[in-house]
Amino acid sequence: MAGNTFGKVFRVTTFGESHGAAVGVIVDGCPSGVPFDTDFIASELQRRRPGQSKVTTARKEPEEPVILSGVFEGITTGTPIAVMVYNKDNRSQDYSNLKDIFRPSHADYTYRAKYGHRDYRGGGRASARETLARVIAGAIAKMVLRQASINIIAYTHSIGDISVKELDNNSLLASTIESNIVRCPDSTTAKAMEDAILEVKAVGDTLGGIVRCHVQGVPPGLGEPVFDKLHAALGSAVLSIPACKGFEIGAGFESCRMKGSQMNDLFDVDRGQVTTRSNFSGGVQGGISNGQDIVFSAAFKPVSTIIQEQETIDTSFQKTSYTPQGRHDPCVVPRAVPIVEAMAAIVICDYWLLSRVSKL
Amino acid sequence: MAGNTFGKVFRVTTFGESHGAAVGVIVDGCPSGVPFDTDFIASELQRRRPGQSKVTTARKEPEEPVILSGVFEGITTGTPIAVMVYNKDNRSQDYSNLKDIFRPSHADYTYRAKYGHRDYRGGGRASARETLARVIAGAIAKMVLRQASINIIAYTHSIGDISVKELDNNSLLASTIESNIVRCPDSTTAKAMEDAILEVKAVGDTLGGIVRCHVQGVPPGLGEPVFDKLHAALGSAVLSIPACKGFEIGAGFESCRMKGSQMNDLFDVDRGQVTTRSNFSGGVQGGISNGQDIVFSAAFKPVSTIIQEQETIDTSFQKTSYTPQGRHDPCVVPRAVPIVEAMAAIVICDYWLLSRVSKL
Amino acid sequence: MAGNTFGKVFRVTTFGESHGAAVGVIVDGCPSGVPFDTDFIASELQRRRPGQSKVTTARKEPEEPVILSGVFEGITTGTPIAVMVYNKDNRSQDYSNLKDIFRPSHADYTYRAKYGHRDYRGGGRASARETLARVIAGAIAKMVLRQASINIIAYTHSIGDISVKELDNNSLLASTIESNIVRCPDSTTAKAMEDAILEVKAVGDTLGGIVRCHVQGVPPGLGEPVFDKLHAALGSAVLSIPACKGFEIGAGFESCRMKGSQMNDLFDVDRGQVTTRSNFSGGVQGGISNGQDIVFSAAFKPVSTIIQEQETIDTSFQKTSYTPQGRHDPCVVPRAVPIVEAMAAIVICDYWLLSRVSKL
Amino acid sequence: MAGNTFGKVFRVTTFGESHGAAVGVIVDGCPSGVPFDTDFIASELQRRRPGQSKVTTARKEPEEPVILSGVFEGITTGTPIAVMVYNKDNRSQDYSNLKDIFRPSHADYTYRAKYGHRDYRGGGRASARETLARVIAGAIAKMVLRQASINIIAYTHSIGDISVKELDNNSLLASTIESNIVRCPDSTTAKAMEDAILEVKAVGDTLGGIVRCHVQGVPPGLGEPVFDKLHAALGSAVLSIPACKGFEIGAGFESCRMKGSQMNDLFDVDRGQVTTRSNFSGGVQGGISNGQDIVFSAAFKPVSTIIQEQETIDTSFQKTSYTPQGRHDPCVVPRAVPIVEAMAAIVICDYWLLSRVSKL
Repeated sequence: MAGNTFGKVFRVTTFGESHGAAVGVIVDGCPSGVPFDTDFIASELQRRRPGQSKVTTARKEPEEPVILSGVFEGITTGTPIAVMVYNKDNRSQDYSNLKDIFRPSHADYTYRAKYGHRDYRGGGRASARETLARVIAGAIAKMVLRQASINIIAYTHSIGDISVKELDNNSLLASTIESNIVRCPDSTTAKAMEDAILEVKAVGDTLGGIVRCHVQGVPPGLGEPVFDKLHAALGSAVLSIPACKGFEIGAGFESCRMKGSQMNDLFDVDRGQVTTRSNFSGGVQGGISNGQDIVFSAAFKPVSTIIQEQETIDTSFQKTSYTPQGRHDPCVVPRAVPIVEAMAAIVICDYWLLSRVSKL
Repeated sequence: MAGNTFGKVFRVTTFGESHGAAVGVIVDGCPSGVPFDTDFIASELQRRRPGQSKVTTARKEPEEPVILSGVFEGITTGTPIAVMVYNKDNRSQDYSNLKDIFRPSHADYTYRAKYGHRDYRGGGRASARETLARVIAGAIAKMVLRQASINIIAYTHSIGDISVKELDNNSLLASTIESNIVRCPDSTTAKAMEDAILEVKAVGDTLGGIVRCHVQGVPPGLGEPVFDKLHAALGSAVLSIPACKGFEIGAGFESCRMKGSQMNDLFDVDRGQVTTRSNFSGGVQGGISNGQDIVFSAAFKPVSTIIQEQETIDTSFQKTSYTPQGRHDPCVVPRAVPIVEAMAAIVICDYWLLSRVSKL
Repeated sequence: MAGNTFGKVFRVTTFGESHGAAVGVIVDGCPSGVPFDTDFIASELQRRRPGQSKVTTARKEPEEPVILSGVFEGITTGTPIAVMVYNKDNRSQDYSNLKDIFRPSHADYTYRAKYGHRDYRGGGRASARETLARVIAGAIAKMVLRQASINIIAYTHSIGDISVKELDNNSLLASTIESNIVRCPDSTTAKAMEDAILEVKAVGDTLGGIVRCHVQGVPPGLGEPVFDKLHAALGSAVLSIPACKGFEIGAGFESCRMKGSQMNDLFDVDRGQVTTRSNFSGGVQGGISNGQDIVFSAAFKPVSTIIQEQETIDTSFQKTSYTPQGRHDPCVVPRAVPIVEAMAAIVICDYWLLSRVSKL
Repeated sequence: MAGNTFGKVFRVTTFGESHGAAVGVIVDGCPSGVPFDTDFIASELQRRRPGQSKVTTARKEPEEPVILSGVFEGITTGTPIAVMVYNKDNRSQDYSNLKDIFRPSHADYTYRAKYGHRDYRGGGRASARETLARVIAGAIAKMVLRQASINIIAYTHSIGDISVKELDNNSLLASTIESNIVRCPDSTTAKAMEDAILEVKAVGDTLGGIVRCHVQGVPPGLGEPVFDKLHAALGSAVLSIPACKGFEIGAGFESCRMKGSQMNDLFDVDRGQVTTRSNFSGGVQGGISNGQDIVFSAAFKPVSTIIQEQETIDTSFQKTSYTPQGRHDPCVVPRAVPIVEAMAAIVICDYWLLSRVSKL
């Protein structure tokens, strides 16, 4: 089973290569009756698109979503929703130098090993351009979740060595997060992050960082143990984003340093609702949501394309060197924020629908 | 789709509750022609079983694997392999006090929220006893991988604040790792870990830690982008293990603090084989194995059951308190080592089989 | 993906060989809260078991269902339900003559071609004994459907040249159908069928026939176009029963000889409910149930094991001859009736659950 | 799981409504390295398209396949292949009269029951226009099968009461079958079929018929018992084609009237290859191909749209009457021939790939 479909009942299939005719997505299993908001898709794509600020690549790639099916008179019909983004700025010439080379820490070599024949232009299928299809699907998932009052919000938690410390009440507002180009809710930290990115950019180098995501309003009961636990599905979804190297839920790796007596989230009752006094679990216990905010983090490595000469090998396994040209992201984290939200939205929508069949 | 099956072509289904009649596993899609080694299953179960040392629970639960199908004359037939472990020590009385209570940071409340009706005895389906079924399936996967000269080895990398520092050449040998009760390849660190566990155990508290796993001998080309990338599948598999709160591949979260120029794994050629000079990628690039060792880590939280009185609520949402009785693990990490190996084996076996259909 | 699991959300996995230790089934995705009726499973197994009458094989195979998981205090918990039937009458010696031979129109050769290594005893995995696992899963599905007032009833429609003609109001009652050993609702026809079977049995030959099945009380809206139409799922389920060679819904093959003006089922309204004046569609239009009875037929070939000498080949591809020994069914149709019901129940239960996620 | 994807490793997803912007297909899991033949897709579409002869609808719908991804330099890359057919002749006005009515034996009512909101124009998703996506996927599957020397050929076996009797050696040649507009390999019978269709067309009525399909060159060993037997998958695939009401393999329903001694296919050996003296099994035994031709038949009902006034109900459940306008097929069988081939190709390609993982 090739891996271009994600989800159990809300099933997302993406296709398209960086320099092909289009990148697109099919969502099969979106319930009928959902008010469809094409403008929202466009605005979500704006958050992901290259060229949005000086901390991202300067490439301009117009991304207009075209709805081909599954929506009628502004409402979903329950049939597959197909959305395309046609590639308008097809510059294959830029990439002919990639034909015979394996770029370090890129997927050139592994695609060659797996498939033999590959589209080398701009990374082909492995290009991060594929993530626009995820953002579209995530936007559709958010339209469904809106009906359930479930909200998803992510932000840049760290860039290189710089991390957000304290978060106040306004931190998890879109207006706060979107108020700066690195998508960090603390403006002082944001400025430091921006400077750090520009500093490495000046020497052709790159940085990584951490995106943190909160899912608010999730009812208790979502998750499909024992293998498809809610956080396992979130982990799988997020780890599949290009450049993601780690995932943790709640206290995550930090929990390894805690004792049980510190980490346990004691139950409480607030106006008839079960709550917990702390949320080190990140909203998931035994693989099932417990009604608290779901909180997880994703680690993104520094971008592999650095504007420096590097030794490497060619497709004949001979040593050579490679210096990239063109425009590249010095740090993907700010653009990864909406992608992480999208993957979270797809998982939560899927499991919210699935929860309808758990009980008689 | 309920989540008790894992895998694409090598499909593992587990069933059974802690205090039910049996815990078992069906492996559907194991190729025919694999020499079957029941003793190996038994020895893998020994590594997971409770009561194996003073750092684990003192419970004794005999675990004899019974093969019901799929094997004929010592060779797999390609039909489903069913393996049962019957529960012999059925002590439901011990758990009647759990009927009306939600233990902190356990799955009692979330199972209730999801399913309404639940088997509360010993955690029911959410009990770690389910992991014996994973170990059995993992042992079968290892039998397949043995034919492909792929080897999987995990060890305890940290317990609480104590971590392994340097690893020498013998570290990744089973004999080294199994030479102490915490399964840490460095004997000095192992002793410190053991002491740390016994120290918290003495006060009824618990510790967490990190398991690191190496997969050796993986050919390049395993992985199913864009969603079912090899590390995404590994992440999903490992995160589904009870108490696992985080997963990272290669440099993982540490990569967030590196620059691209530090992190890139430069390609090299060694006797006609592609290699990399470093392995910060953890053996996976673009979601596909690159032929280097696959290296990942899993974070395990401290055990939720502490032998201390804790405030909590009952099933009527009234406040109460709870003090566990009986025998419990002060730290799951040593027993998690074979479970992590098992889940890795299942994923790698699955993707190794899948790789046969990628190319014409 | 090996094919021993059926269903989308109500997922049935069977395992076990004819002469192995057990045949069993796991049902994953049965909702929690379903009253569980073990006696009903036993009574359904009685309808399938060999040795029940003179028109079936004389073999006696005690079939006691043992519930291992998924049920607590008589109610399903939403976790996997495992049910075993252990083989008590293990007579492998009887079958050693099958080791080196390919029986005509059996699966001996094709299993050898596919898997290389096979369990030849009594047909191994290809034995109709596997169908007891289907009957168990079907009984569980019926327990769910009982809660939705959906009823399934099948009967023998033809044996060889002898068919039921007219059906009166009592035909679709279990008491009518079970009143004779061929499970034909018309007693006169039943007697003729019985005689026909005994006639071929006397000369070691076999007969086939048709099972017809009605599903009553199905709400409109079940079915998952465009590929998983309700009748396509029913077809797949029924065609997977051993010896089944054909499936038709509603007027089926007869519809090829009708004109559109004859075949169209005109809509009507009866007390606010949509009905149709005829039911040539068999209750399914566009792949979705329309609220009328679902009516389909399944064709079963004559049993391949005839008690006559037949030319064949051995596993070295040399010509030889073969005369079966032991006790065999002269006609599977009476025993196929509960199996057809079981497969229909599994499909309808699955699609009934799925229909909960179609609409917002 | 919504049902718009078919296949296990060769996965076909279709989307699009009759009067939407496009109908398209994604094939995920096509191996890399397959020479891609866009002209062949176009020629297969020609065989399905409306307006091809006087026995089909007179509608002209240009159908130009546009390849968006998955093919590079004329060779498949192993990534998802997306193919679109944009709708150029958008005549929604023609269908506004369908908004408030349920046409007899169409899917109008059942889609309404399932989804609530529906695209009523031209049948929306339930339109046979969706089958062009199947034909495209089938053409891609045929490109793969060509590499394995597997050939698929279908023909019209009956229309109404008129059936092909004897078939000579040339019957299974494309040139023979395509030499007449009904796609019947016997020219005399073809003429009678054509006359029969024109006769009912003259009075606004419609006819059904049977398509028979042969798959040649299939190696032994394809099929995934016990549920996903090869003929069960073929049955499911074929029954999902609009208007298909029945499926049979080999002797099918006729086998119910045969005795075991007549029906058994005796094995023989021809130049070291296992063969059978007859092929009543239709090339499948125990759900696995035996190396003989796979032969199956599909029953198609008469088209529901008759150009006659019919009583029906409207969406308010009030009685009304309906007389279709526009251009409709008097008989779908000739156009169903390439669709049946397509679905067979998809299944055989899928199972041929799957067979690579059966054995060690």
